[in-house]
Amino acid sequence: MSQDTSPFTRRLATNARTVEGLLERLLGQTTEADEIARPANLLAAMRHGVLNGGKRLRPFLVIECADLLGGNRDAALRVGAALECVHCYSLVHDDLPAMDDDDMRRGQPTVHRAFDEATAILAGDSLLTFAFDIIAAPETALSDAQKVELILALGRAAGHGGMAGGQALDLAAEKSPPDEAGIVTLQAMKTGALIRFACEAGAIVAGAAKEDRARLRAFGEKIGLAFQLADDLLDLTADAETMGKATGKDAARGKGTLVALNGQTWAEDRLEQLVAEAEALLAPYGVRSAILVEAARFIANRRS
Amino acid sequence: MSQDTSPFTRRLATNARTVEGLLERLLGQTTEADEIARPANLLAAMRHGVLNGGKRLRPFLVIECADLLGGNRDAALRVGAALECVHCYSLVHDDLPAMDDDDMRRGQPTVHRAFDEATAILAGDSLLTFAFDIIAAPETALSDAQKVELILALGRAAGHGGMAGGQALDLAAEKSPPDEAGIVTLQAMKTGALIRFACEAGAIVAGAAKEDRARLRAFGEKIGLAFQLADDLLDLTADAETMGKATGKDAARGKGTLVALNGQTWAEDRLEQLVAEAEALLAPYGVRSAILVEAARFIANRRS
Repeated sequence: MSQDTSPFTRRLATNARTVEGLLERLLGQTTEADEIARPANLLAAMRHGVLNGGKRLRPFLVIECADLLGGNRDAALRVGAALECVHCYSLVHDDLPAMDDDDMRRGQPTVHRAFDEATAILAGDSLLTFAFDIIAAPETALSDAQKVELILALGRAAGHGGMAGGQALDLAAEKSPPDEAGIVTLQAMKTGALIRFACEAGAIVAGAAKEDRARLRAFGEKIGLAFQLADDLLDLTADAETMGKATGKDAARGKGTLVALNGQTWAEDRLEQLVAEAEALLAPYGVRSAILVEAARFIANRRS
Repeated sequence: MSQDTSPFTRRLATNARTVEGLLERLLGQTTEADEIARPANLLAAMRHGVLNGGKRLRPFLVIECADLLGGNRDAALRVGAALECVHCYSLVHDDLPAMDDDDMRRGQPTVHRAFDEATAILAGDSLLTFAFDIIAAPETALSDAQKVELILALGRAAGHGGMAGGQALDLAAEKSPPDEAGIVTLQAMKTGALIRFACEAGAIVAGAAKEDRARLRAFGEKIGLAFQLADDLLDLTADAETMGKATGKDAARGKGTLVALNGQTWAEDRLEQLVAEAEALLAPYGVRSAILVEAARFIANRRS
């Protein structure tokens, strides 16, 4: 059966359209904060960086984790959109000439190619800032306590102890390849932190008990590791056309990955193990967690 | 009487040392969020961008505005430190080669000169993210409702409808000089928004009534305009040694300023008028607002 017609991928696609619709509204010319006009060129660059037909995997995880625990769906959607703004800002900045120097992203010119470098820097800055605006806004139907928890968790997942810190370690890795423990830390921060946050955020949106929150956070950690491992496998095997961006670059730069270190067979075994562990964490929720189990499998087996 | 020995400048300096001390602790190797180590090089770049002996004018305004209305001083200090992180991130990114391309800032090499461009981008990103972390953290002794209000106001002051948007307009102004109304909008966003937020934030920290909050916000607007006008005058008249950075660059790039448009005498008159208006806004608070009146005068008359 093709991935494109499975119930899971249909649900992923439906969610992605809903997220895209909200992002489209949030990044419209008139927004919820309408005191000052937003510069059209900057807004266009932000839209270019966000409205690009991504899979919206992180918002999907927020929405489905919140749903599992009975959270408000609209609130989860807004938190998911905020998280997607953070994810997309990181791509816009990572693509810059001073960073990965990428010309293409999802088959389109990167923001600094479609606009210019200064505008790409500002568009990234603005998307990051906007994420916190979206969560704090009155339109997000959550208690103030929930908003503060979300903002704190997002700040730490995205900041120098999380994603941005992981990116800094990644820069350092080009000059001095890290050992296995170093690679694991780097990846847990660079890609793992936001995926873990996505799952934990769903629990916060649902006002979950401490134990449920810890469980979803642990689930997010497992699939975060799986995501990066699958990415490293793809970087090795996929071609640029499938990925819509340059591939094989990590290997070409001598960046250490666990796949390079331990081999493809090890990586495939490890992926299976991570999915099993992720699945086991959701066992207490029974059949209601089926969609998240499928998400874990999808993440491990994705080919783009 | 020299500015350096007036009671006002002594208080400004005392506050600056307190803010510097908190920033030093917040950006220490071990911080409040200690789950994952922060990369040393990134942290060093963040420290370079922040711990540079600035006047800490924005935190000063948060602290003194909160104090005027009976707010918690420690909470105001933390919000001030968060705001300073946002201000400093904007300087780190503005100095980048793709933006203003500045080598020096406060007599020191800019972050991308002392480190490298990629690290400067990430240090700015991390400082911006950290600002929201600081406000949301349990150590900030405010209600969740106050934190959400602060985060929303800061997000809007710093984002594409505020500071970052103003910076985008500033880039556009190099290619196509704006008219007077365009310059006013640009400046209200680029520098005005954060100064206005500083004053409004003090009111939020104090849990102020709506009217007091609006009054301090209006005061912040006036001194924000004064700040930019004084800056434009300085750019015209000061030398690089006094400023610790390159001067005359705006004029050299043909960037329109109100000083260039209307002349130095007009600007000096307008500055006086703005200070008088700012002072009038504080009249209801009587003698308790003396320090803020002095701050307005200092901002209008500063020579560095």
